[in-house]
Amino acid sequence: MLKTAFDVRMVLVRARNPLNIGAAARAMANFGFRDLALVAPFEAAWQEARSAVGAEEVMAAAARFSTLAEALADRTLVAGTTTGQRRKLPGGLLALPDLPARIPPGARLALLFGSEKSGLSNEELSFCHFALRVPTVAACPSMNLGQAVAVCCYELSRADGPPVCDRQAGGAVAAPATMAEIEQFRGELEEALRAAGYFSRGHRAGDTEKLRRLLLRLHVSGHDLDALRGMIAQMKWKLEQSDTGQRR
Amino acid sequence: MLKTAFDVRMVLVRARNPLNIGAAARAMANFGFRDLALVAPFEAAWQEARSAVGAEEVMAAAARFSTLAEALADRTLVAGTTTGQRRKLPGGLLALPDLPARIPPGARLALLFGSEKSGLSNEELSFCHFALRVPTVAACPSMNLGQAVAVCCYELSRADGPPVCDRQAGGAVAAPATMAEIEQFRGELEEALRAAGYFSRGHRAGDTEKLRRLLLRLHVSGHDLDALRGMIAQMKWKLEQSDTGQRR
Repeated sequence: MLKTAFDVRMVLVRARNPLNIGAAARAMANFGFRDLALVAPFEAAWQEARSAVGAEEVMAAAARFSTLAEALADRTLVAGTTTGQRRKLPGGLLALPDLPARIPPGARLALLFGSEKSGLSNEELSFCHFALRVPTVAACPSMNLGQAVAVCCYELSRADGPPVCDRQAGGAVAAPATMAEIEQFRGELEEALRAAGYFSRGHRAGDTEKLRRLLLRLHVSGHDLDALRGMIAQMKWKLEQSDTGQRR
Repeated sequence: MLKTAFDVRMVLVRARNPLNIGAAARAMANFGFRDLALVAPFEAAWQEARSAVGAEEVMAAAARFSTLAEALADRTLVAGTTTGQRRKLPGGLLALPDLPARIPPGARLALLFGSEKSGLSNEELSFCHFALRVPTVAACPSMNLGQAVAVCCYELSRADGPPVCDRQAGGAVAAPATMAEIEQFRGELEEALRAAGYFSRGHRAGDTEKLRRLLLRLHVSGHDLDALRGMIAQMKWKLEQSDTGQRR
């Protein structure tokens, strides 16, 4: 059966150690992946990693972003790596060997790796459709960053991409919304909710994450998202009109 | 189906970099492997690696050997990792995803990893039943040592050991000869061949490796090896007798 390669971006969030960044890039090169993004890396680590041996091409093409949202803007499926031992996880916890089967044809995947010190924060995990766990033992669950990237690259390369024919056999599949589209809608929805007095006790930090998680659970297509945006925009306009009317 | 864990020793041959040794130990700890052997490591690398963070238990139990033969003495199946691009390989080349299926119940496996600089030598590969390749891309085939160990640990842990019931269903399987038994027999066979004038142009370096490879291809059981040793011992005795007789 003909296979395509997965479209995967490896996203290192707040990486601190240049050796780890270089090792991640090297592993990607070993398995034929080229899309590396760094979100808010430590400045010295970024500078030093750019001369990593054995991964010159990947590092030269690596992109640096200030925020996670920017790094994910064009992605349609996001998984955050975690040891899965600490917190409530959005969208459930998937074991790495089961990942390839969860990637639909045409998906633009991002795998997130947290900082060496603290992993991914709850806010960072709120950008993920699901959490991903490399099945390590309970006595020593936390992997070295470069090795975690290597193992993920191996699994994705081992599975060798989704079958091309699935897309044809399954009929026309609506293209999923990108993370940028979802974030934009999430912002518009928040404004509309604020206008509607939804956040009665004031807007709280967790509210944004809750909305983001809800939207990700919908797995909405770009087409449907357009329709939703139209509805919310209309409601927001009406809410602001009536607000203006009351104040008059 | 009930599964047992594989009995695997990771053998690092002439490792030079303490960070790599520590990283290998850390990956082993992550996936629940504990048997690490170092053959002729660089002295400074060995000393420094023993304090590797996150892998204290594995490093504390790590064994150091002067020769590869000693490190393999109790093993019954040996695979040497290689990029597979340079040389004629003994016993063929296996891709890592196919390794678990090649490990029989009760096997005591060793995976060899060569030095960061040069990989495994031909002499070192002559101790292997087969060569093992992590399926990297041709443009960047050579993996970082710690990452190669991590990926191998992941694959073995992913497969989760041979089914226990195979051993019962298949009836009594003769225990395979250990590497120490094979090496001892190889030495005795060489002596007998020398006595027989087999090495007509003198014994050459490659002759030992050729014999070793031949014996590994036989996958001989410990029981059968005993029988072979008896035959060779008898022939050698006879050869030496007649030699003494001629000289009289």
